[in-house]
Amino acid sequence: MEVLHDLVGYQQRKIYQDTSYFAFSLDSILLPRFVTLPLRTHRILDLGTGTAAIPLVLSTRTKCPIVALEIQEELALLATKSVVYNQLEQQIEVICQDMKEYAKSQESDSFDVITVNPPYFKTKDESFQNENIQKRIARHEVAITLEEILGIAKKLLKMGGILAMVHRTDRLLELLELFQQYGIEPKRLQFVYPKVGQASNMVLLEGIKRGKPGLKIEFPVIVHQKNGEYTEEVKQFFE
Amino acid sequence: MEVLHDLVGYQQRKIYQDTSYFAFSLDSILLPRFVTLPLRTHRILDLGTGTAAIPLVLSTRTKCPIVALEIQEELALLATKSVVYNQLEQQIEVICQDMKEYAKSQESDSFDVITVNPPYFKTKDESFQNENIQKRIARHEVAITLEEILGIAKKLLKMGGILAMVHRTDRLLELLELFQQYGIEPKRLQFVYPKVGQASNMVLLEGIKRGKPGLKIEFPVIVHQKNGEYTEEVKQFFE
Repeated sequence: MEVLHDLVGYQQRKIYQDTSYFAFSLDSILLPRFVTLPLRTHRILDLGTGTAAIPLVLSTRTKCPIVALEIQEELALLATKSVVYNQLEQQIEVICQDMKEYAKSQESDSFDVITVNPPYFKTKDESFQNENIQKRIARHEVAITLEEILGIAKKLLKMGGILAMVHRTDRLLELLELFQQYGIEPKRLQFVYPKVGQASNMVLLEGIKRGKPGLKIEFPVIVHQKNGEYTEEVKQFFE
Repeated sequence: MEVLHDLVGYQQRKIYQDTSYFAFSLDSILLPRFVTLPLRTHRILDLGTGTAAIPLVLSTRTKCPIVALEIQEELALLATKSVVYNQLEQQIEVICQDMKEYAKSQESDSFDVITVNPPYFKTKDESFQNENIQKRIARHEVAITLEEILGIAKKLLKMGGILAMVHRTDRLLELLELFQQYGIEPKRLQFVYPKVGQASNMVLLEGIKRGKPGLKIEFPVIVHQKNGEYTEEVKQFFE
């Protein structure tokens, strides 16, 4: 069922979702808040944009053009509807294409900032079996792997350009290795903790293409207090 | 000047310090609280023990024998005095020796747990110049480097044995790489944040020799509240 939601915390933006696919989640709100947007940012790319939650939030921070790339037609269509509804056609261009094909078609060193909320699970993970194809592609590395995404970012980012990613904490070591292997120096990490006292389940990582070594661990995001309520910081996303 | 201090948070332990060298700090309290001590721990080694703050705290958690190794005579002497004062001679053995020599003299695979609060700074770091030799050896990689410590841990730990280290967050990537390079799989990380809203400056890392991959990011330690007071968690160390 297709529904028009408030983009939480960003009341000036609304977003189309289809409840039979998946809803945007905290990940998609935290990443566009986390990413550094240097003053001279001319072009941003959001890889695997889904329903374009990340570009919609980014558009509250910058007027710079954003390419929102999504392989799945149904999701790209919802993304387009949201862009039109929010009157952001001049800023956000939704493209429905496989990101590997898109990367081949583009010149190297053509983006200042790339954001990505990639599929979290390897295809061998068990939860894989019971999902519809839309969820599978969004959540599992069916259409694209983490390493392929790094290859694309390496090609498309300018020297000194920024790659910002959200991922599951249990893949942290792999993330750090792949960033370095593809010449994108890890510069900022922020851990997300679901609740006071619990281990981190999500991580935000930003790297710079050919950047100097030096990794900063930002103060974390803690989602729930001990009593189960949202923390003050996270409450603001939902009010 | 030599003084006898309460070991903060551990009122049943007292520790000799010499104010012209350096005092133990939060690092030395956090590490022995952080480290996992499996039930069948038969032998623990604290590398570069200084005035033995780490073994003194560990002795509140376990009755297992602890070797406290320190290269500097003045510090080893203070460590010995503290061990005697606390009547822990049966548990803690202070040895004054270069840890590289000590490692050569020991059989491989002979410890279950190794703790280490290593020198934090490379010798090229600028702050190096103005310190007395005791502080230099404790704070800078004059007598031992991080990589040499990993080599020692690799030799002396049993298969499945635990290495727990506290270090500066800005050396995190190097830590993770060296642990893996020396066959000690990173298993638990805990970041320490000096104050709410500020980046992490200290990190606790635990690895298992030939352990399975899988790194947990524990809920962090936050030292000061926004208003500058200690957080509730850290207050207990000082009461």
